[in-house]
Amino acid sequence: MPYEFKDHFHDECGVFGIFLNCPENATDAARTAFYGLYGLQHRGQESAGLAVANGRQIHLHKGMGLVPEVIKDEHINALSGHIAVGHVRYSTSGASNVVNSQPMVFHYLQGMVGLTYNGNLVNAQVLRQQLATYGSVFQTTTDTEIIANLLARYSHDPIEQALAKCMIDLKGGYALVIATDDRLLGARDPMGIRPLCLGELNGNYVLASESVAFDTIGATLIRDIEPGEIVAIDSQGLRSVQHTPSSRKALCIFEYIYFARPDSTIDNINVYHARRAMGCQLARECGVAADMVISVPDSGTSAALGYAEEARLPFHEGLIKNRYVGRTFIQPTQALREISVRIKLNAVQEIVKDKRVIMVDDSIVRGTTSRQIVQMLRDAGATEVHMAVASPPTRYSCFYGIDTSRREELIASVMKVEQIQNFIGADSLHYLSTEGMFAAMAGGSGSFCAACFNGDYPIAVEGFDPGSACG
Amino acid sequence: MPYEFKDHFHDECGVFGIFLNCPENATDAARTAFYGLYGLQHRGQESAGLAVANGRQIHLHKGMGLVPEVIKDEHINALSGHIAVGHVRYSTSGASNVVNSQPMVFHYLQGMVGLTYNGNLVNAQVLRQQLATYGSVFQTTTDTEIIANLLARYSHDPIEQALAKCMIDLKGGYALVIATDDRLLGARDPMGIRPLCLGELNGNYVLASESVAFDTIGATLIRDIEPGEIVAIDSQGLRSVQHTPSSRKALCIFEYIYFARPDSTIDNINVYHARRAMGCQLARECGVAADMVISVPDSGTSAALGYAEEARLPFHEGLIKNRYVGRTFIQPTQALREISVRIKLNAVQEIVKDKRVIMVDDSIVRGTTSRQIVQMLRDAGATEVHMAVASPPTRYSCFYGIDTSRREELIASVMKVEQIQNFIGADSLHYLSTEGMFAAMAGGSGSFCAACFNGDYPIAVEGFDPGSACG
Amino acid sequence: MPYEFKDHFHDECGVFGIFLNCPENATDAARTAFYGLYGLQHRGQESAGLAVANGRQIHLHKGMGLVPEVIKDEHINALSGHIAVGHVRYSTSGASNVVNSQPMVFHYLQGMVGLTYNGNLVNAQVLRQQLATYGSVFQTTTDTEIIANLLARYSHDPIEQALAKCMIDLKGGYALVIATDDRLLGARDPMGIRPLCLGELNGNYVLASESVAFDTIGATLIRDIEPGEIVAIDSQGLRSVQHTPSSRKALCIFEYIYFARPDSTIDNINVYHARRAMGCQLARECGVAADMVISVPDSGTSAALGYAEEARLPFHEGLIKNRYVGRTFIQPTQALREISVRIKLNAVQEIVKDKRVIMVDDSIVRGTTSRQIVQMLRDAGATEVHMAVASPPTRYSCFYGIDTSRREELIASVMKVEQIQNFIGADSLHYLSTEGMFAAMAGGSGSFCAACFNGDYPIAVEGFDPGSACG
Amino acid sequence: MPYEFKDHFHDECGVFGIFLNCPENATDAARTAFYGLYGLQHRGQESAGLAVANGRQIHLHKGMGLVPEVIKDEHINALSGHIAVGHVRYSTSGASNVVNSQPMVFHYLQGMVGLTYNGNLVNAQVLRQQLATYGSVFQTTTDTEIIANLLARYSHDPIEQALAKCMIDLKGGYALVIATDDRLLGARDPMGIRPLCLGELNGNYVLASESVAFDTIGATLIRDIEPGEIVAIDSQGLRSVQHTPSSRKALCIFEYIYFARPDSTIDNINVYHARRAMGCQLARECGVAADMVISVPDSGTSAALGYAEEARLPFHEGLIKNRYVGRTFIQPTQALREISVRIKLNAVQEIVKDKRVIMVDDSIVRGTTSRQIVQMLRDAGATEVHMAVASPPTRYSCFYGIDTSRREELIASVMKVEQIQNFIGADSLHYLSTEGMFAAMAGGSGSFCAACFNGDYPIAVEGFDPGSACG
Repeated sequence: MPYEFKDHFHDECGVFGIFLNCPENATDAARTAFYGLYGLQHRGQESAGLAVANGRQIHLHKGMGLVPEVIKDEHINALSGHIAVGHVRYSTSGASNVVNSQPMVFHYLQGMVGLTYNGNLVNAQVLRQQLATYGSVFQTTTDTEIIANLLARYSHDPIEQALAKCMIDLKGGYALVIATDDRLLGARDPMGIRPLCLGELNGNYVLASESVAFDTIGATLIRDIEPGEIVAIDSQGLRSVQHTPSSRKALCIFEYIYFARPDSTIDNINVYHARRAMGCQLARECGVAADMVISVPDSGTSAALGYAEEARLPFHEGLIKNRYVGRTFIQPTQALREISVRIKLNAVQEIVKDKRVIMVDDSIVRGTTSRQIVQMLRDAGATEVHMAVASPPTRYSCFYGIDTSRREELIASVMKVEQIQNFIGADSLHYLSTEGMFAAMAGGSGSFCAACFNGDYPIAVEGFDPGSACG
Repeated sequence: MPYEFKDHFHDECGVFGIFLNCPENATDAARTAFYGLYGLQHRGQESAGLAVANGRQIHLHKGMGLVPEVIKDEHINALSGHIAVGHVRYSTSGASNVVNSQPMVFHYLQGMVGLTYNGNLVNAQVLRQQLATYGSVFQTTTDTEIIANLLARYSHDPIEQALAKCMIDLKGGYALVIATDDRLLGARDPMGIRPLCLGELNGNYVLASESVAFDTIGATLIRDIEPGEIVAIDSQGLRSVQHTPSSRKALCIFEYIYFARPDSTIDNINVYHARRAMGCQLARECGVAADMVISVPDSGTSAALGYAEEARLPFHEGLIKNRYVGRTFIQPTQALREISVRIKLNAVQEIVKDKRVIMVDDSIVRGTTSRQIVQMLRDAGATEVHMAVASPPTRYSCFYGIDTSRREELIASVMKVEQIQNFIGADSLHYLSTEGMFAAMAGGSGSFCAACFNGDYPIAVEGFDPGSACG
Repeated sequence: MPYEFKDHFHDECGVFGIFLNCPENATDAARTAFYGLYGLQHRGQESAGLAVANGRQIHLHKGMGLVPEVIKDEHINALSGHIAVGHVRYSTSGASNVVNSQPMVFHYLQGMVGLTYNGNLVNAQVLRQQLATYGSVFQTTTDTEIIANLLARYSHDPIEQALAKCMIDLKGGYALVIATDDRLLGARDPMGIRPLCLGELNGNYVLASESVAFDTIGATLIRDIEPGEIVAIDSQGLRSVQHTPSSRKALCIFEYIYFARPDSTIDNINVYHARRAMGCQLARECGVAADMVISVPDSGTSAALGYAEEARLPFHEGLIKNRYVGRTFIQPTQALREISVRIKLNAVQEIVKDKRVIMVDDSIVRGTTSRQIVQMLRDAGATEVHMAVASPPTRYSCFYGIDTSRREELIASVMKVEQIQNFIGADSLHYLSTEGMFAAMAGGSGSFCAACFNGDYPIAVEGFDPGSACG
Repeated sequence: MPYEFKDHFHDECGVFGIFLNCPENATDAARTAFYGLYGLQHRGQESAGLAVANGRQIHLHKGMGLVPEVIKDEHINALSGHIAVGHVRYSTSGASNVVNSQPMVFHYLQGMVGLTYNGNLVNAQVLRQQLATYGSVFQTTTDTEIIANLLARYSHDPIEQALAKCMIDLKGGYALVIATDDRLLGARDPMGIRPLCLGELNGNYVLASESVAFDTIGATLIRDIEPGEIVAIDSQGLRSVQHTPSSRKALCIFEYIYFARPDSTIDNINVYHARRAMGCQLARECGVAADMVISVPDSGTSAALGYAEEARLPFHEGLIKNRYVGRTFIQPTQALREISVRIKLNAVQEIVKDKRVIMVDDSIVRGTTSRQIVQMLRDAGATEVHMAVASPPTRYSCFYGIDTSRREELIASVMKVEQIQNFIGADSLHYLSTEGMFAAMAGGSGSFCAACFNGDYPIAVEGFDPGSACG
């Protein structure tokens, strides 16, 4: 559902898990997981699902659509049990069907497992071929099914050990939340590329991709799962089963720039603060003269407010978003082809007319939408339109769980900034510098994966198949 | 779909019409009307519909749901013709079914008519009883069907005259857009209580409740239809058939406060500017000391920006809205009863913690949501929470087309401001003064209907049945 | 749903009504009407609906589809009241939408009315024009809305008198079942062209198009409503308000041949007996030598059994019907074009191979299906295929409530019997004689309308519009 | 969908396969398989699916519902390829969901496979546990997934050999139809418990559970697949890969009594002829005096016609079935509790009144429906009701692919015939003798599995889990 219609990178899934010691009602785990998923909806709108364990069995409900479209009261009521895992998946254009949705529930020698996964393996094809040689059968094309079969290779081990062995095989960025009949497991890749955090709700543990899921259910953030850590939660409490981080920490910096919700805090940095700081830094670097700052809503707003504050310029709602633009949409004919952006976003003539405008956005991927917005602002009477982007040019593809376009589709990988400025028709175009970005994050370049900006890939990639991304 | 979940007044419908002289494709009128309705979606999310005239017949498609849910490519393709009228309706809890949705298409002595209507008649029951005495049959409980039968009473007149005679009978606030087999009519009540404006798209005329519908399709606002005016558009162009205004002009001031989109301009005043001016005025009247201004998104944001600018305080996104909260929603159990607001709105601890916060909203109806938001801000660590409301207390019901609660449900009609402050738990509560509101509108109190604030009803009400509101 | 896929005439609606003196549950009337409609499902599969009166108001539920698809438990539970009327409508290709479905519920001067109707008016256009002149508004193209507006013309009379006046205006064949807030009315056209019967269920009265609806609910058939009779049922019991028959009785004979269910009894003649008697008579008239009799299931079976008995030939299931052929169906490509009949009907090679077969059907309309079946039997190895039709050639269109093809589409109106035999490829073709048909009915030609066979129309037709048939 | 609403045993799936050498259109294989499945619809109404191979990949479409509800033109158009397999599944109350539906499509070392299966394994649990020990993962509880994983154990063999090895492991009755990227395989269990036959359509081979599927698509029956045979069809034609029958042939005799369509021929015996012969035999054994024979439609009719012929009694349609009784059904309240049978079946008073009636049915499972029908006939005035059952008492459960009730639910396993007669309230009750059944089948008891009648199980059962039946 293109609520965020701008041509953006897209994150690929949110995961959630809860272990209730003493639920008041049999469906409290499922119900709480439902609300938690709702808070993670921005991480995936294609499909949603819940798997709930009751000590003997795991029941599953999943389907295509938004969380409240897929999961109804009748489903919650059928999902009794004290351990729940849930998943939301991003809608890519490819194999978008319920078979590929999560959680994946399976039986193996040790019993039943409900598996949820956010990330991408760079060695998926290699692992799949190895498993097939041993006699594995694959009903989907997802990473998730590879992980399930890999776990079953170690089926004579307890699941914590099996998972630890699996993590030696898996190359990539990922977060895993897993339910068995009597415990909840969480795991994060050795570099911490994808986020996963731990919270507490009335004495019970919860796991989620982002802390905003805890806010939604009234839980408290305890800490982030460490890179390379496996935690196991059961009736005895929480144990950190292993902690074998890589020598390098490499949290995806795009979580701060665009993916995560501003009210989340990841690895101790609040997203809103990070964005606002990038906006401030951008203003310091940019310094163009103008009458006002406006944002491309909603993801550009935090940075725009920071920019306006730093630049001591008024901030105005110069672009208004239609809050009802949804999934299905009638294609305009040739005569109406300019409508598709106008219907989603409208430039307010009474605000921008005869003004010099700085328009702040979080990033540019293909540039086509930016171009249309600049034109809209000019049509509305703006005398100058300066575009300020609160992140550096995105020049490299991502291999660790993000639906990036192929490199040739990234405008910054084929054009110089001046060319991009011409393409989008702005009077000036300013990107945040890479150094400025790291400075705003108050962290060195060593703590993050910023490969899409600087090509510094923390994991070598071999035989990567972008078609298998997510799941 | 409660994208706007706060307890608000609700407007009741948006109307749209287009007359194409030379469509390139047979379905251009329908297609353009579809996009126009999309721009009016905020005025009604219950049902949507289109009626299209092709010179001989009028075809209709309507249904329950959002514009793009109801109207698909296949429907557009079946609606060929050069005159189109469309409608969106607000979802009230009552008689919410497709029979009551619009447009209403009917045959009478002069041929077929497609009728769309936004407003409310205060003499609906009287007219209905009169018509029944003459032998009229009613299949719905809507005002629309009353107007259709009233038109048919004058069925031996040309439709412009019939409509003029009808308007003598109708008491209330309304806008009408009507298609016959060969013309498009627009009419606005004699006091101009409900808005209706005229635009131009490549030499063709369009009519809409708000100018944002013109922006969406790339049309230009020409002017507002005058109070008491009937315009007729056919292949000869546009004629102003009559113009018999009341002695008093009384545009509903709530259009500026909440109903209309900020990018609309109504009766020559831009909505965003009006809201920002109210925010500025509020800051001047209020003057409380604080560390920051935040808004209750989205409708409080324009006023909050004005307040922050005037008060020279930083504006922060202290409350984040879940953009995916939709129609269907699983009810929390008692144990989870606090969740319903949290899932929609989240206070950002990292922003408000240890701060004195001024929270700006556009209005308060029942106060229950405000109360929960104040508590959320305190839970997030705000040391002081001051609420500033960019409109006066709403003490009186509306009879002219708005789904106001019964008076006893309006908190300001049963409590004093101090009591309300206690109820919502704020450290202070400030309403915009009525004089301040009019001042911000740069107009005297005589130009607007502000009855919900001051009880000054421009039309006497007799036998009003709030159950028949809208349609 | 073409369970009866043969090219047949089609009846157009079934009506049902019930008045409960002391319901045990508030929804007993609705629930019983639901089951009654189920028993009338063969009379119409396009739409279904119920209207229920509770002494003050009438609530309605209707929709497109089969009775159990449209009416669910939740709808029944919302329809409390002691008077219920229900309707099933046949699926014609034309204006098949919910607006045209029944019951029609309307308000007029005397209150609310729920109207159900089976039949066709030959003077619909004249009445409609007259009513428009008086100021009536029409939202549909149905006869039902004409009748509603006509009733409202006499709105100062009690409804029984108003209905009696209406029946002077209405020309055609029809049955009406009407609910007001406190009574149930039934009416049958003066010649009794369409059937309507009265039953009793535990001391309560019920009305239905066919007696099989009474069997379904466990009610007992009391008698048929007389031609030209109006009955009114209220808390005082049943009154025959008027009884003004035409000089001629003219029950549609096709009810016995095809429309009605074999287990119904209409005007004191059981349908199964009538069909079996026609089969016997056909055997007496026909006398062709053969090895076996088979039927075209299901409607030809009763006559085929009579034929086999009279001819002392064995009856075999030589054609097997697929019981799951339903509404939606994938169109075969050219290469598979012969499949559409095969999928519905299969000739059993092991039965008919090397045999001389008499295939009995109830009627022939266009002959295309008969032709395909004859060919299938030959393909299966039958040495001779004789077709025996248990009714005379259908040479004339019907104007009284049946969806007959235009005359030029009736094969018997454009071909002689010998030509039809050649067209369908049978070794011989035998129709029942008109005299034989009347003899089998044990009634003179004066008691029935057999206009489709003999052109003897009991009512003159003027300005008939076949497009407005049904409803 | 209880079109057959009587309490019956139920078969569990139909399979279909086609290999087209030179399709005219890319979707001919899918389209033909669609029609073939339509002809097998009586074998399963829960779910339907198609998998189509195009030489490189296998595409799948499946879902819950009837064939034409699940498979639409758009799906056919997306399924291009020259090899298609299809499946219909019976609706059991248990794990009725799309995950368990077929075909199952999977990747393994040799490539992609589309698997369809009808039957039941008696050693499913043993195999599953063995496979789990080797590291297999199971996403369903079906036999089908066990077979897939077993095939993958032999993944280094060509698929024909792998299948042959699998068949040594599989214990039970089954038919398999399998598509790979370049061939179509068919296999039948070594005793031939479940049917599978081979046909020819314009030079192409087809496989199906029953020959009626060939009639539907215009194909010709070549022969049955032999017990223990594997056939492989590719561009080189058909090869019989192996033929290793058991020493005992044991085709399920219930296929003739109830499951198969009367127009199918299985193992050279036509089903209609078998049923009619059983009816004749029953008349010879029974010899009760009566006025007429009637059947419980539809499955009792063939036997009833045989009975009537042999007994020289007239056959009448004394019970009429509502052809529109479908899946969804409103539950009657206590006051209406007798309705559920009446709505489906109606006794015709005009036929049975004052008559001695012999009612023929194919079998009795629980007896509750028979009891209601006998009462209906008495209510309709029958003076005597004799029930004649065209099969022996069903005293034993089935373990080879049929959804039999648990033994204690089989009335004949807990009551003697005289007690059953009292329970159903008949004046007399006559079952066909086991010897008479075999005599009518013109085969010795050694050719069939009649374990449900005589307890002579051809395969020993160990660890059987009735919950995993089908799939």
